[in-house]
Amino acid sequence: MVIGLATMLEKSDALFASDHASVVSMNLFVALLCACIVLGHLLEETRWMNESITALIIGSCTGIVILLISGGKSSRILVFSEDLFFIYLLPPIIFNAGFQVKKKQFFRNFMTIMLFGAVGTLISFVIISLGAKHFFEKMNIGDLTISDYLAIGAIFSATDSVCTLQVLNQDETPLLYSLVFGEGVVNDATSVVLFNAIQRFDLTHINSAIALEFAGNFFYLFILSTALGVAAGLLSAFVIKKLYIGRHSTDREVALMMLLAYLSYMLAELFHLSSILTVFFCGIVMSHYTWHNVTDKSKVTTKHTFAALSFLAEIFIFLYVGMDALDIEKWDVVRSSPGQSIGVSSILLGLILVGRAAFVFPLSFLSNLTKSSLDEKIDWKKQVTIWWAGLMRGAVSMALAYNQFTTSGHTKVLGNAIMITSTITVVLFSTVVRFNALLKPVCIIVKSNRV
Amino acid sequence: MVIGLATMLEKSDALFASDHASVVSMNLFVALLCACIVLGHLLEETRWMNESITALIIGSCTGIVILLISGGKSSRILVFSEDLFFIYLLPPIIFNAGFQVKKKQFFRNFMTIMLFGAVGTLISFVIISLGAKHFFEKMNIGDLTISDYLAIGAIFSATDSVCTLQVLNQDETPLLYSLVFGEGVVNDATSVVLFNAIQRFDLTHINSAIALEFAGNFFYLFILSTALGVAAGLLSAFVIKKLYIGRHSTDREVALMMLLAYLSYMLAELFHLSSILTVFFCGIVMSHYTWHNVTDKSKVTTKHTFAALSFLAEIFIFLYVGMDALDIEKWDVVRSSPGQSIGVSSILLGLILVGRAAFVFPLSFLSNLTKSSLDEKIDWKKQVTIWWAGLMRGAVSMALAYNQFTTSGHTKVLGNAIMITSTITVVLFSTVVRFNALLKPVCIIVKSNRV
Repeated sequence: MVIGLATMLEKSDALFASDHASVVSMNLFVALLCACIVLGHLLEETRWMNESITALIIGSCTGIVILLISGGKSSRILVFSEDLFFIYLLPPIIFNAGFQVKKKQFFRNFMTIMLFGAVGTLISFVIISLGAKHFFEKMNIGDLTISDYLAIGAIFSATDSVCTLQVLNQDETPLLYSLVFGEGVVNDATSVVLFNAIQRFDLTHINSAIALEFAGNFFYLFILSTALGVAAGLLSAFVIKKLYIGRHSTDREVALMMLLAYLSYMLAELFHLSSILTVFFCGIVMSHYTWHNVTDKSKVTTKHTFAALSFLAEIFIFLYVGMDALDIEKWDVVRSSPGQSIGVSSILLGLILVGRAAFVFPLSFLSNLTKSSLDEKIDWKKQVTIWWAGLMRGAVSMALAYNQFTTSGHTKVLGNAIMITSTITVVLFSTVVRFNALLKPVCIIVKSNRV
Repeated sequence: MVIGLATMLEKSDALFASDHASVVSMNLFVALLCACIVLGHLLEETRWMNESITALIIGSCTGIVILLISGGKSSRILVFSEDLFFIYLLPPIIFNAGFQVKKKQFFRNFMTIMLFGAVGTLISFVIISLGAKHFFEKMNIGDLTISDYLAIGAIFSATDSVCTLQVLNQDETPLLYSLVFGEGVVNDATSVVLFNAIQRFDLTHINSAIALEFAGNFFYLFILSTALGVAAGLLSAFVIKKLYIGRHSTDREVALMMLLAYLSYMLAELFHLSSILTVFFCGIVMSHYTWHNVTDKSKVTTKHTFAALSFLAEIFIFLYVGMDALDIEKWDVVRSSPGQSIGVSSILLGLILVGRAAFVFPLSFLSNLTKSSLDEKIDWKKQVTIWWAGLMRGAVSMALAYNQFTTSGHTKVLGNAIMITSTITVVLFSTVVRFNALLKPVCIIVKSNRV
């Protein structure tokens, strides 16, 4: 849980330097999390709000206050840390999603999910990369290399599974939920391969051999990640059933399940696999086998504990993104060229729309050809919903953008700063504006259509 | 949860430098935790073992392996971090203890607990400080100042509440449990005052004014810490009852309880109060009020989640202490003088025995004078058990010793290194040897006596 914290976090630096000041920050953060829950609960009745939006808004407001207090120096209490996100916040969210997913729906649509997640992401990646190269080269926003353009393609092809979970309801729209969320998970595996490829291969000369290696790499990663997750899940089921740990203590059962789930995630990280895929399948297997072998108390406890931890991680991310949105350092760099910044963000939003449309509609058509019953076909309205739902970009895009365009969370280069601020703009816009103003009505249309 | 991690942990440094290596360490640690649970479960039937001892032994073995692999350079995967201990591991343990404590017994014996925890700790502190000064000055182990001697008194007066919880069983010996554990909690408040005093006051000239200020400081700290914990607990009860959060979601109720408990701890840290006392009382109030206002599912979930987290934190600590015991750096410094090292450890063990005897028996006598019923009196055998049970020194002593005698977890000075290795020896000896060989039989005597 801890071991490498020092190395992991030495990259990030806090606003405050002393230990006591870090206690102040922690108090602030925990208090804000409480406020998000309470306010989110109070606003539950209003259709346009939920905890995530509340967290984003509270985060932004806090950012403004910190900005004023610090005299315009900083707006946040910690620098974005990829490791914090990938090591502590993402695992509980994805594990819980696997743990609570409706397995029947998921496996019934497995091929469609793979099609969307793998082929679709590649199509989107190519379109966004080419589009970015085409438009940004004319805009004179600093020297972006070919690998930067490819990275932009990967960054903005990564859908936000976390956000998606909040938008669609598993009970109300099971088909859509499993398609969009499943796609998001497979999408991650694809993103990992893409990123590795961008860093490893010389992509200026793509030929069929490299493409083949690329495909092989993807299947290797996909199969190994899945196998590891399934193995970890089965191991937990075996140990808990065979040793009958619940006989002595419910607490130990719960603790062991948590540890093994986390171990699967960390093992995948260790072997450079897609840890999201691993922990997702670990969650599925645990809910299918392990969960039925534990005591009744453990059943209730695990179900709600995993959900509560996932929920906390989610609002933590949104709170953080809200605070980070106002980070003055990056906006300072791009202040001299507001037009360029707005231009880049708009182009990126356009490319995301086009890139997603370019695979959702054709692939849905392909998928429909293989289905015989009308119920399983993806009708036009569902296609539109899938298109909209997957448009959101979230913490994964942020993490990848920071990885590509900053050094230890900082940047002074104009081109890089513009890319970071544009990512923030796209994330905020796609989450808050599009989500609220457009997606829910679409969902309602689809739902009313189904009834 | 995070904000200050950077500053908090930049003091510690990991064995491995790169990010991937820290992932290796995390895998190792999580796997070891799993092993502790499984082995501890398998050894459940044998009377001399439990998870803590298993964790200590597994930790030591791992330490040896790492020592061999690293070619004698290091035995552990992270340097002891006070913050890790006080910010992440201790809160769940103490909160859970408050949450699960039998309140009736605790409040019935409140005065005795206060007597033992406050007056007793002071007596023990004075005896150990004076004894250390008397003996160590003759031993020529480097220059220890007067404040070092006082620190030694405080370090070895701090009983290990964590360990105590594992030794005594609340259901079998409720009176003893509440006395020894309650004492441990109050003991912490006393330790905080003592440490503050050592650092703030000029203790070479103690007069009645300083003593009075000292006493005032203690009561101020005690009352404020308790009040904060009670307030946080009542706030959680009020919010959850008034807003009826469970109506919408069990998960949010659970998340909110966790957050508020943690907030109480961090607020106490913020105001330099005794956070252990605060979170303990927060636990008591939450189990007494909040817990009865939540849904049935939340009841089961919170009860077992808090227990599981506490359990994990405990084995984490023991695993870490086991690994740290072999840290080569300190043993290297003291290698030249093994006689001195053994002498110091033995003297300290003797002083702990005497210091505790000097207050347990007289204060029990005093307490018995105020009790009328024979049931409530502390008979001779119980006094012996209280004496033995409170002899254990654990992670709190380690943390204080590191604070006083090292700089960022390192030391090269002979006197300081001897104090650190002696602390480790005392902790290991008191936990493993005394615990196993002596305490359990004593408990059994007491139990058979009660039946």
